[in-house]
Amino acid sequence: MTETPDPETLAQRVQDGELRLHELDDEVDAVTAAAARRRLLADETEADLTTVADYAFDAEQATETAVENLIGGAQVPMGMVGPIQINDGDDDGAVSGDKYLPLATTEGALLASVNRGCAAMRNDGGATARVLQNAMTRAPVFRVADVGEAAEVAAWVRENFDVLAETAESTTSHGELTSATPHVVGDSVFVRFAYDTKDAMGMNMATIATQEAADHIETETPAELVALSGNLCSDKKPAAVNAVNGRGRTVSADVTLSRETVADVLKTTPDAIAEANTRKNLVGSAKAGSLGFNAHAANTIAAAFLATGQDIAQVVEGSNAITTVDVRDGGDTLYASLSIASLEVGTVGGGTKLPTQAESLDVVGVRGGGDPAGSNADALAEVITTAALGGELSLLGALASSHLASAHEELGR
Amino acid sequence: MTETPDPETLAQRVQDGELRLHELDDEVDAVTAAAARRRLLADETEADLTTVADYAFDAEQATETAVENLIGGAQVPMGMVGPIQINDGDDDGAVSGDKYLPLATTEGALLASVNRGCAAMRNDGGATARVLQNAMTRAPVFRVADVGEAAEVAAWVRENFDVLAETAESTTSHGELTSATPHVVGDSVFVRFAYDTKDAMGMNMATIATQEAADHIETETPAELVALSGNLCSDKKPAAVNAVNGRGRTVSADVTLSRETVADVLKTTPDAIAEANTRKNLVGSAKAGSLGFNAHAANTIAAAFLATGQDIAQVVEGSNAITTVDVRDGGDTLYASLSIASLEVGTVGGGTKLPTQAESLDVVGVRGGGDPAGSNADALAEVITTAALGGELSLLGALASSHLASAHEELGR
Amino acid sequence: MTETPDPETLAQRVQDGELRLHELDDEVDAVTAAAARRRLLADETEADLTTVADYAFDAEQATETAVENLIGGAQVPMGMVGPIQINDGDDDGAVSGDKYLPLATTEGALLASVNRGCAAMRNDGGATARVLQNAMTRAPVFRVADVGEAAEVAAWVRENFDVLAETAESTTSHGELTSATPHVVGDSVFVRFAYDTKDAMGMNMATIATQEAADHIETETPAELVALSGNLCSDKKPAAVNAVNGRGRTVSADVTLSRETVADVLKTTPDAIAEANTRKNLVGSAKAGSLGFNAHAANTIAAAFLATGQDIAQVVEGSNAITTVDVRDGGDTLYASLSIASLEVGTVGGGTKLPTQAESLDVVGVRGGGDPAGSNADALAEVITTAALGGELSLLGALASSHLASAHEELGR
Amino acid sequence: MTETPDPETLAQRVQDGELRLHELDDEVDAVTAAAARRRLLADETEADLTTVADYAFDAEQATETAVENLIGGAQVPMGMVGPIQINDGDDDGAVSGDKYLPLATTEGALLASVNRGCAAMRNDGGATARVLQNAMTRAPVFRVADVGEAAEVAAWVRENFDVLAETAESTTSHGELTSATPHVVGDSVFVRFAYDTKDAMGMNMATIATQEAADHIETETPAELVALSGNLCSDKKPAAVNAVNGRGRTVSADVTLSRETVADVLKTTPDAIAEANTRKNLVGSAKAGSLGFNAHAANTIAAAFLATGQDIAQVVEGSNAITTVDVRDGGDTLYASLSIASLEVGTVGGGTKLPTQAESLDVVGVRGGGDPAGSNADALAEVITTAALGGELSLLGALASSHLASAHEELGR
Repeated sequence: MTETPDPETLAQRVQDGELRLHELDDEVDAVTAAAARRRLLADETEADLTTVADYAFDAEQATETAVENLIGGAQVPMGMVGPIQINDGDDDGAVSGDKYLPLATTEGALLASVNRGCAAMRNDGGATARVLQNAMTRAPVFRVADVGEAAEVAAWVRENFDVLAETAESTTSHGELTSATPHVVGDSVFVRFAYDTKDAMGMNMATIATQEAADHIETETPAELVALSGNLCSDKKPAAVNAVNGRGRTVSADVTLSRETVADVLKTTPDAIAEANTRKNLVGSAKAGSLGFNAHAANTIAAAFLATGQDIAQVVEGSNAITTVDVRDGGDTLYASLSIASLEVGTVGGGTKLPTQAESLDVVGVRGGGDPAGSNADALAEVITTAALGGELSLLGALASSHLASAHEELGR
Repeated sequence: MTETPDPETLAQRVQDGELRLHELDDEVDAVTAAAARRRLLADETEADLTTVADYAFDAEQATETAVENLIGGAQVPMGMVGPIQINDGDDDGAVSGDKYLPLATTEGALLASVNRGCAAMRNDGGATARVLQNAMTRAPVFRVADVGEAAEVAAWVRENFDVLAETAESTTSHGELTSATPHVVGDSVFVRFAYDTKDAMGMNMATIATQEAADHIETETPAELVALSGNLCSDKKPAAVNAVNGRGRTVSADVTLSRETVADVLKTTPDAIAEANTRKNLVGSAKAGSLGFNAHAANTIAAAFLATGQDIAQVVEGSNAITTVDVRDGGDTLYASLSIASLEVGTVGGGTKLPTQAESLDVVGVRGGGDPAGSNADALAEVITTAALGGELSLLGALASSHLASAHEELGR
Repeated sequence: MTETPDPETLAQRVQDGELRLHELDDEVDAVTAAAARRRLLADETEADLTTVADYAFDAEQATETAVENLIGGAQVPMGMVGPIQINDGDDDGAVSGDKYLPLATTEGALLASVNRGCAAMRNDGGATARVLQNAMTRAPVFRVADVGEAAEVAAWVRENFDVLAETAESTTSHGELTSATPHVVGDSVFVRFAYDTKDAMGMNMATIATQEAADHIETETPAELVALSGNLCSDKKPAAVNAVNGRGRTVSADVTLSRETVADVLKTTPDAIAEANTRKNLVGSAKAGSLGFNAHAANTIAAAFLATGQDIAQVVEGSNAITTVDVRDGGDTLYASLSIASLEVGTVGGGTKLPTQAESLDVVGVRGGGDPAGSNADALAEVITTAALGGELSLLGALASSHLASAHEELGR
Repeated sequence: MTETPDPETLAQRVQDGELRLHELDDEVDAVTAAAARRRLLADETEADLTTVADYAFDAEQATETAVENLIGGAQVPMGMVGPIQINDGDDDGAVSGDKYLPLATTEGALLASVNRGCAAMRNDGGATARVLQNAMTRAPVFRVADVGEAAEVAAWVRENFDVLAETAESTTSHGELTSATPHVVGDSVFVRFAYDTKDAMGMNMATIATQEAADHIETETPAELVALSGNLCSDKKPAAVNAVNGRGRTVSADVTLSRETVADVLKTTPDAIAEANTRKNLVGSAKAGSLGFNAHAANTIAAAFLATGQDIAQVVEGSNAITTVDVRDGGDTLYASLSIASLEVGTVGGGTKLPTQAESLDVVGVRGGGDPAGSNADALAEVITTAALGGELSLLGALASSHLASAHEELGR
């Protein structure tokens, strides 16, 4: 039996053109392959990859499921926010009680900001949160001869939902097709398939199921598949279709704060927060031609996505969020809400299996499949949205007090 | 001299209400404080935070600059793509030659996809890339009495650019104010300040400089500052103002591929890729009401941002990207380009100082300030954009071959 | 019995403050009231309203249904385009054969442009057109206590569609409620009601029916109506909700042209038209952050709306249109299509009853209610869309030949 | 000398294929040609075009400047609104005092609605209005070899503004080039030229001047013109580039109303109007993915455009408007504003020369060129915006009172 070649030797073989970078995985174990690649990079770029080499996940598994050409790990500092107090009233929400949420970020002052908002919310009894829709989508685009044929295909899709559902669901043990909406643009027919993907974020489930349904459409109609994703899905693009119709979880959280809490914790008044929200988040976003009417929801979402193993490119859709603020009771009460149209989260599959991320999901108490199925992902969506609402409240408070720059000066650097 | 209290004792004191979570940093060193918080979470949530505790960065520094309430680190597998071959013609681009780029992600098949695209580009002589604009923005919103006063303030801003530049630049040794554009909506006046922030992403620099300029506007005009960010900036929101006018780096990359390369490497034809691009990225995105006319640029951008210490919430703006494809020479040549309107990157400050991220920047060869100032961030922008173009080519090729689902089946899970 | 007072006397009484402008209708017949108002304007502004006074419609009816404070008529030159040749294949479209369409406009060269496109289409056998959806919408906004209550109301709406349909349809003899989709933003609940309004454009029908349904929602749930239109309808605003989901008629038309026809009639090549369409209508619109991916569809729509008695403010939604062009058969064939997401037309009610507009509808052969109900409005939608496609072809041809400015120089002025 | 052939004979010759429709203008005078076309339509469609034949404009002139294939006129009822009271403070606005505005529409209740708003404004001292920018745009698209060349062309444009201005302005006696902004998307370069077109709406002026400048760019750089309009203009499309950066006139109007006026005239309270505005115009439009954050500004704009000879297809851009409402003084005062980003109006050229439209401009007192040049178009923009603000106030008031449906029932039909 031959010995495992050492990284230096392997790197040299790649440099000599005997091996290609990704073929290292065929020669040696993942740990050694990664070491060989780091060696190669050290030679060719003079980068010292010491800390990259210091990772805690299983290299073999990472190579199989997450990255190709593994060289090691990227590390981002992680802190905790909370308790995030959420009330689910008559048990209609997916989560109740006090929750902690890990956030991984390099945005100094972000966690302090979210925590301040959470403190304000706790002060007055906590927040309410609800998942309003659960619809992971995939929209293939088909070619047809002309608009006459397009109309036929669209009609066929509308009339054969049951068949499409049966076909799509044959590929998955959990997912359910909930709608299939045709859209015609000339000789292109798009069909937006929406699925309840339970505790999975569901992009892969939806893709595989849609491939099967698309094959069936090709069989039964004159349509020919051009691309399994036709961008009407729309994945990882800032698109109105998601902001209007939702994608993944559509979720809202809100809270009512007293004037005292606003004064004590947020250091300002309900009126000042309302003015900042209207001029900035509503009017400013309107003038910007934006799909995001919030202060910095993406910050909290990105940090939570990184900590809990979500797909961080889907922060794009997560930013389709609207923050509203009302002053009630003649100025004595502040109502604030955050509604995220397309928050794509899961507690099984993908990055949730990485060790640091799995541990983070344990902190929230939502690791793995929920009971009933989907309840863990619903709960995670509600916790993230509520934390992001805390971040909204805190930043609006800071802006209302003109403290943004100084907050960054003190905390950020 | 007293001994450092142990994490258990500290966690207990927090649980007893004697200490608050963030006050741990006042009591003990950052490492111990993080341990205490993990202990608390272990008690309250039964999460075992073993791998979270295994981090390679300096806890003290992370606490000061990145997160509050540190508990440890999040780790994401990192691989490498490349060589990314970029030609800068007559030395007009910021980068030239072969570059490797680390990408950190949990999106299985992403690196293989980008690498396939890079291989295709190398096959035919490499890509071209250019930074076309460099403009980090911050847009405060002011309150005025009425539209008459608004018109006055807007006129004042237009006529006093030099004064505003001098004022804003007094706060920074590097940044330059390049424009200040007023927008009026009723009794709100927004001024969008744009800066050349050199090698810094520049959000903090822009914020601090704008605070100074905003103070000056308050002094010289009847305008009163409501919020230092009025969302016309627009930071971390999917906004047309960035897609149209740019933010951070505006950068394009393109390549010309032969029919043979498309066949050999991408396993399809120029015509098939062009059709997929038109129906999906152009027509499909049009129908979706999208600001992103690309296949999955956000995937590459997110992975590169995580690896190199950028602000991952700014993937939102990065997705304001357009992919174009032309078939030339009667089908013998494929032209493909990716133009990102608002790619916000830096090589100094923020997350670039974290060890794994700094090492990644060394791989690209752009760590720290460039010479001339700004050239490192420009180069990073060009490398990321070219890698993302590789990802576009590869995914378009896969879609054109209807292989998306199967590719995920094989590589992703 | 007293004589009718003369306009001078009446104008004087208004000027003396004895009568208000709109009270003239209570004093005298509509013709005299209009004369009095013209007299008043002549006195106060020195405008000579001779041609305004020269109108052909019934003043009484106009006063009752179209304008208040009638002073006369606005006249716009009207020409004709056609024949517009439309094939409906197996009788699946709403219209077949050769149609003329009156267009009223001040845009010199527009009719010549549309006619040139129509000639090209006739040359190669005509166009195909299809109405793909018929859904006039109204979306009230309700206030609720919090997101918990919002979730309840949304669920109630989803579960009680039959009741809402019955309630809404009780107000109309023709309209049918086809969907009612709830959207939650914090403590606001929007419900987008969609109706098949047959041959009516249907805004009023939808408003009245929705009022009844909204009353019912108020009775059955804790929701309180804030505004019968909550802008998610969205009427006369440039909104993605219409571009994505449709409003009024969603309609597509297309045509296949030979290289010879493109050369003879459009004076260019399929490739040149395709390039102009891609760079201008697709890429240019993408970069503009547009919902309209066409050359000048709004021109034809506006002119047809004015001629046939449609609501010209709804040209806004009509411009949510995508033009696609494909070159087929190695450059020998040009495929072109126009898909309008939200074309709001009717052949009964509103301005369709005005004499010049009713005559125009007779030219198209679609005046009044169709058999079956809705077929006349469908046919009008298909004719307008096909004419607009003609305009697209012609302008793309002109642009491809760089003739836009000179065409305007010759024809426009 | 031969006699003019009669319409019947001419119609027969067209039907026999001896003459084409548009060639009638070469054979006979415009009046007879129109009669012949009506005869033809009567024969072929059985439409009776009696009222279409009854027009007050000069057929010859209409044929030369407005329509081809003239058949007659379209008539729309026209009423008057006002007085619209506008104050220009220290003479900074373009208009002052009481103005009447003719509106042509078929939207029953619209004029009553605008008038009610004008009455409210008069009650409390009138409105304020300002034109904030004047920038008619045209954006050609050029083809270049690659992004390297694109960067060169963009740089050339930035560095040669003076040359481009001189070139462009050589074609016009009035227009001034105010900016030329390059945008790169792959191998397409768009240059957005903006002009001060004085009292002309300016589309033709801008097109002709831009043709000259584009020719110069072709001469001086490797760029090749593909289309003189590249849709980044963006004309008659709902595009963010106009909503954000403006096109034509950017104009705002506002007013402050007392609680008494709101109660007496608008039959509601400041708080109720503010709530309706926030939930409908801001939050509802946000959720709709809209560029129009107003209630029905397009209604007033469309009616004013038709009455005063503007291009009604440009109502599309006019709808890029934001209505804001603030309650001040603890509920005792209502502040309301309307800001239209892209209102394209002129008082010379185009439809302004038609008789009924010219008379309408006389009513406003802005017919023809102003002194100084541009002041008439500015004034018209301010009057229309203020009238539209009146319409906003009135509809918000009606909605706040839940009276929309009943208002339509009473007044509309």
